[in-house]
Amino acid sequence: MIQANNPALKSWVEVPSGSDFPIQNIPFGVFKTGNLTPRVGTRIGDFVLDLKTLYVLGYLENLPFELEDFDTDSLNPMMKKGKQATRDLRNRISKLLATDHKDLSGNEHHVGQVLIEAEAVEMLMPVQVGDYTDFYSSRDHATNVGTMFRDPNNALLPNWLWIPVGYHGRSSSIIVSGESIHRPKGQIRPNPEEDPIYAPCRLLDFELEMAFVTFDGKPLGDSITTAEAEDYIFGMCLFNDWSARDIQTWEYVPLGPFLAKNFASSISPWIVTMDALEPFKLEGPVQDPKVLSYLEYEGKHHYDINLEVAITPENGEETVICNSNYKHMYWNMVQQLAHHTVNGCNINCGDMMASGTISGPEPNSYGSMLELSWRGTKPLQMKDGSERKFIQDHDTVTMRGTCMNGDVKIGFGEVATKVLPAK
Amino acid sequence: MIQANNPALKSWVEVPSGSDFPIQNIPFGVFKTGNLTPRVGTRIGDFVLDLKTLYVLGYLENLPFELEDFDTDSLNPMMKKGKQATRDLRNRISKLLATDHKDLSGNEHHVGQVLIEAEAVEMLMPVQVGDYTDFYSSRDHATNVGTMFRDPNNALLPNWLWIPVGYHGRSSSIIVSGESIHRPKGQIRPNPEEDPIYAPCRLLDFELEMAFVTFDGKPLGDSITTAEAEDYIFGMCLFNDWSARDIQTWEYVPLGPFLAKNFASSISPWIVTMDALEPFKLEGPVQDPKVLSYLEYEGKHHYDINLEVAITPENGEETVICNSNYKHMYWNMVQQLAHHTVNGCNINCGDMMASGTISGPEPNSYGSMLELSWRGTKPLQMKDGSERKFIQDHDTVTMRGTCMNGDVKIGFGEVATKVLPAK
Repeated sequence: MIQANNPALKSWVEVPSGSDFPIQNIPFGVFKTGNLTPRVGTRIGDFVLDLKTLYVLGYLENLPFELEDFDTDSLNPMMKKGKQATRDLRNRISKLLATDHKDLSGNEHHVGQVLIEAEAVEMLMPVQVGDYTDFYSSRDHATNVGTMFRDPNNALLPNWLWIPVGYHGRSSSIIVSGESIHRPKGQIRPNPEEDPIYAPCRLLDFELEMAFVTFDGKPLGDSITTAEAEDYIFGMCLFNDWSARDIQTWEYVPLGPFLAKNFASSISPWIVTMDALEPFKLEGPVQDPKVLSYLEYEGKHHYDINLEVAITPENGEETVICNSNYKHMYWNMVQQLAHHTVNGCNINCGDMMASGTISGPEPNSYGSMLELSWRGTKPLQMKDGSERKFIQDHDTVTMRGTCMNGDVKIGFGEVATKVLPAK
Repeated sequence: MIQANNPALKSWVEVPSGSDFPIQNIPFGVFKTGNLTPRVGTRIGDFVLDLKTLYVLGYLENLPFELEDFDTDSLNPMMKKGKQATRDLRNRISKLLATDHKDLSGNEHHVGQVLIEAEAVEMLMPVQVGDYTDFYSSRDHATNVGTMFRDPNNALLPNWLWIPVGYHGRSSSIIVSGESIHRPKGQIRPNPEEDPIYAPCRLLDFELEMAFVTFDGKPLGDSITTAEAEDYIFGMCLFNDWSARDIQTWEYVPLGPFLAKNFASSISPWIVTMDALEPFKLEGPVQDPKVLSYLEYEGKHHYDINLEVAITPENGEETVICNSNYKHMYWNMVQQLAHHTVNGCNINCGDMMASGTISGPEPNSYGSMLELSWRGTKPLQMKDGSERKFIQDHDTVTMRGTCMNGDVKIGFGEVATKVLPAK
């Protein structure tokens, strides 16, 4: 067991019951305040721990980090130091925050300098994303889409059970929770018998996804095996892959989604490490047909992460519209990364790879409005009495994720994004 | 007329007849030597002009640049200064190199410091590419592909004449001329009646493309119009979009090409500015049906750039297999950029956008082996007596591009990439 995951650990920092951020989590993010420049921090209960100041005060000595790794506006310099270094860092922070450890807790003046109320900080985009890839790895999602748009009897395309299908997305428009987006404009063809028109998207959707962030990989030309893949993955966050369904329908043949996706993707601000997620590993589904050799794997690489999506109309109450779980993935992260690099494609520190829409087998576990409302044929009821087929202007979409290990819960916080009208 | 484009200009640096790099070019790139760290340079005849040293010696005063803009391993800091600044820089270099200007030419000691024989330098990847997009904007190419794989009578898909179709590619694997690549491995299905296999690509191809590099754009949510687009484009280079046809066929439905492309793309090392290309502007084709309002444009935005592709077998002689021209594009760069941002997608300094395969109307102007050999049915004859349906191990593929303005020729140099066997 990784020491920092010990369920018996308690922190001298008070952690409210039900918090996503007990001492067993220790995620990493970037924050600023009115007084403080952007810097790296972690989260404990309702407080952010300022790692720059912690470093300056000498609490991170004998670890392979420098001031510049924390005094910066992205996690990339810290992640550049690799798996072992970031693991050691998390373990050190765990020690400093544990009840039986007095180094930091015994110095009231220092505690006042390094702990900041979470409500007082602004969370920033945590990672400078080099390349962003989106997979399509939920069998229920692929089946639902195939059933709606193609043939219910042959819903999965011939390659789906062989390939962790993926495509490249846009990294420049990945934003952090709290930033609003505008409804995108583009080409749509409401009437397939008529010419397309230029108009605001009418079928705006979210996609419930999770993403992982990578360390530096191997040089161009080399592959990462499934056995090696975990060494190249730093952590995970919630990912809302915003989608304009009407733009997508018209544009995506033959080269895939483009403007239907690249107007925005939203992520949660805290990257939860793979180390913290270790207790939540599960067996994956039996893969039949048997996968090709480079996709075979040993051990557990699926994760039990409860997910939910809620819509909050303007000035309205939140309605939870989806309860799902990351365990519903058919292809896991080590298979995704092995596939991505099997041709020698290189990955870099800060690359982001999203799961694809995570849908479970039950209708209330579907991860998009497209599926939840079944192409708009089954509108969802909001608590304020209104209905939703797709996302409306001024709606806020919120995604949350949590894991339970006996009494210990760790979570991802949330990604919440409000939709403003088209510009 | 931009002063630096004056056809009457001559340089005191001797420029061999037929050189791609007369004083009317002044492209930008990044180089190093055994003695010199990576830095920004330009090219004149057979010499590289060291802009870092030129700056240190005071020749770039009263321009908005700092030492760090040239003393670095990418053009991004320089490009960050924007269109007017880089235009002024090119004009200054033009003056310094002109016969009637003695500031630099009159100081023999300085000349010896700033001019380096091109043969003695190593050209590096010129741009740190944030996001890379590949378009599909040659009508002949799209028609050829549609004819081969779909229906000769309906070769163009319904969206093609409405949308400058594009998709996101991989920026991490863009390499500079001179670097070799390995034949990629992956999933292919040689027999559609049988299961796929894991094997080296058997149908390796190039795609003749050109790419443009952007300045910083507008914030997320804002669009760039066709009228504004040129202000956001720095320059162009040759682009070889390596393609594994058998991997592509099996993987690309429904989300587009992925591993068939992301193992490598190669570019020429010198970025030729849009200013230098100004004299080579042409009218584009009549677009029928009439494009939607946001894709309408005024003025000339196509370019007359002669292109060629050659294959050199190992220890063999080069065979030119394709003669084409960038003017064969249906969609131009200002339309591509307006389309890319119509939904509010943001672009950043250093983004790269490629044209898609540039095929002309004649069979010898097709821009890929797929088309030139018509799916392998018409093998190409090499000068050494061998045949090529696709690219073989140890072949070097070379692309070149040149423009003629009366007696003045400017060129892009070349992108040459050797294919090594699968690892």
